[in-house]
Amino acid sequence: MTSPREQIESTLAAIAPLSQTAMRQARERQAQLTKPAGALGALEEVSIQLAGISGSCPPPAPERPAVAVFAGDHGVLVQGVSPWPQEVTVGMVENFRAGGAAVNVLARACGAVVRVIDVGVASEVAGDDVVLVRNVRRGTADLSQGPAMSRAEAERALAAGISVANELADAGHDVLLTGDMGIGNTTPSACLLAALTGTPAEVVTGRGVGIDDDTLALKTRIVADAVARLAPDAEPIDVLSEVGGLEHAGLAGFILGAAARRLPVILDGVIAGSAALVAQALSPEAIHYCMAGHRSVEPGHRTALERLGLRPLVDLDLRLGEGSGAALAFPLVRSAALILDEMATFDSAGVANKDD
Amino acid sequence: MTSPREQIESTLAAIAPLSQTAMRQARERQAQLTKPAGALGALEEVSIQLAGISGSCPPPAPERPAVAVFAGDHGVLVQGVSPWPQEVTVGMVENFRAGGAAVNVLARACGAVVRVIDVGVASEVAGDDVVLVRNVRRGTADLSQGPAMSRAEAERALAAGISVANELADAGHDVLLTGDMGIGNTTPSACLLAALTGTPAEVVTGRGVGIDDDTLALKTRIVADAVARLAPDAEPIDVLSEVGGLEHAGLAGFILGAAARRLPVILDGVIAGSAALVAQALSPEAIHYCMAGHRSVEPGHRTALERLGLRPLVDLDLRLGEGSGAALAFPLVRSAALILDEMATFDSAGVANKDD
Repeated sequence: MTSPREQIESTLAAIAPLSQTAMRQARERQAQLTKPAGALGALEEVSIQLAGISGSCPPPAPERPAVAVFAGDHGVLVQGVSPWPQEVTVGMVENFRAGGAAVNVLARACGAVVRVIDVGVASEVAGDDVVLVRNVRRGTADLSQGPAMSRAEAERALAAGISVANELADAGHDVLLTGDMGIGNTTPSACLLAALTGTPAEVVTGRGVGIDDDTLALKTRIVADAVARLAPDAEPIDVLSEVGGLEHAGLAGFILGAAARRLPVILDGVIAGSAALVAQALSPEAIHYCMAGHRSVEPGHRTALERLGLRPLVDLDLRLGEGSGAALAFPLVRSAALILDEMATFDSAGVANKDD
Repeated sequence: MTSPREQIESTLAAIAPLSQTAMRQARERQAQLTKPAGALGALEEVSIQLAGISGSCPPPAPERPAVAVFAGDHGVLVQGVSPWPQEVTVGMVENFRAGGAAVNVLARACGAVVRVIDVGVASEVAGDDVVLVRNVRRGTADLSQGPAMSRAEAERALAAGISVANELADAGHDVLLTGDMGIGNTTPSACLLAALTGTPAEVVTGRGVGIDDDTLALKTRIVADAVARLAPDAEPIDVLSEVGGLEHAGLAGFILGAAARRLPVILDGVIAGSAALVAQALSPEAIHYCMAGHRSVEPGHRTALERLGLRPLVDLDLRLGEGSGAALAFPLVRSAALILDEMATFDSAGVANKDD
């Protein structure tokens, strides 16, 4: 029986650099395709990244996407950081199960399956083929009063995320999309963003799905105070357990697990971005397997994307979470791979190149 | 036998306002879906526009897209405004026919058919199911020396575009995407942008698919001089014939024809944007049927989108044309419609709303 800590360590050890050979071949092939060099902009960069991830050029186009929606609750909600009641988390888990949420619609639209992982929902959730019960604890403790969870709980949630990535990879999914659900979860996200990037709480704390000025001031103060408790040399998993959330831990593990399996990851919004910062702190290499599905209007997301070095593929003022932005981005990622595979070259098409 | 002018006038007369009733119903329905109000950002606006276009809520999700690639050549190429030789236009038409160009790959990826319309290619092109020969003249005259075409030719190219929209509508296509091919066509685009928005040539003239500083200066001077020839009260079709291109005229007609058939139009980049300005000048209402598929790096495209009042759905530094940006945007448009149709409401899902 492998302990969560051992599972995390073996996963980190399995994360390899992208293939520089395949990326060089992809760059060369882009220059031969029947279009001006660079004319497909960021899509060309995605195609090169996919080549590096798969280790082949052209890379196989991803055709079997899966969205993993990690769900958890947050003790800090009692402080009044969100106008939505905690029971919305479990209500939305049931909405995901029934197929009626935005992420269900967007996933169906792009051919993705949705899996919901109860990693920290406050009330009991029934498991089935859609909802996987991996509950580590029934919601975090109030991070404004002390640690959100123990280090052991953070490790269990990380390991749960790794396991989900492995299970989806074993089931044949070839691209993994992040999703999240948890009323109040932009507060621990802001804490992780502030702590892991050294950015002031005022910059990274936002209105989530909609709060007034007084609530924003309260939320910002809670974030600043919680982050101030952290030791300057706190390890990533200590930061996660002190001020994070269970779905953040699950998502960080999910990203690491996908990278260890050499699968591309399409990140959703600010919750995924803050979780990716935890993954980056544990393994900088893991982020090379990630694409930013979109940029949320939540201000901290910009900070996260800059630190991660990722350019968002969709930028449409979304602020929903659930994996909605990742699902919208999937067709762009697939198209990027198909360009490398299916386009004619100047030679094969007999079209004159600029330099001929 | 209807003359081109009669066909244009009857098309303009057939363009109706969007349904305000359906748009109001779509706004109300967005507020009932299981998500915070506005959380799907620009996607919600697209869904409301689709309701207004179709006159129903929820609007039918577009499922049968067609990309119409209007191809033409440009006499101004002899002035050295592009490093690419003119024969690349017809070479790319053959590449489209064979299915090897970027737009073919991106269209296949989203389930769209590609139709290429020879509206002004300089050399002879064979017609078949993919390539429609509607050649009005074999390339424009050099617009730096005089009118690019006669007013009658501009009207014939506009009418050709209207006919193509009608044929695609009759064949059951429910969303029309614009594409273009024509070496040198960013020069007439810049002329149309400058003339129709009153913007200086230096602002709207760009590097197209890649030119050096000297060529950019030459191109800008040609644009400024050509636009200076126009009478202050020149009618839109006079502007088009004096400084435009045959594919621009075809595209303007295509947009008008789609609007008259109440079909949504996904515009590609700067060529489509400048053609849409012509359509707007002839019928402001027609633009309400248009969505901006993407924002090109070509500087004039920003000017065009501002004047058209359109927000780009994809913004990934593309500068290829062909319809590539429109094809990439189609899945976003389809997803916007599916959200209205398939998402659960707070009532139907039994999820507590913020205000409950």
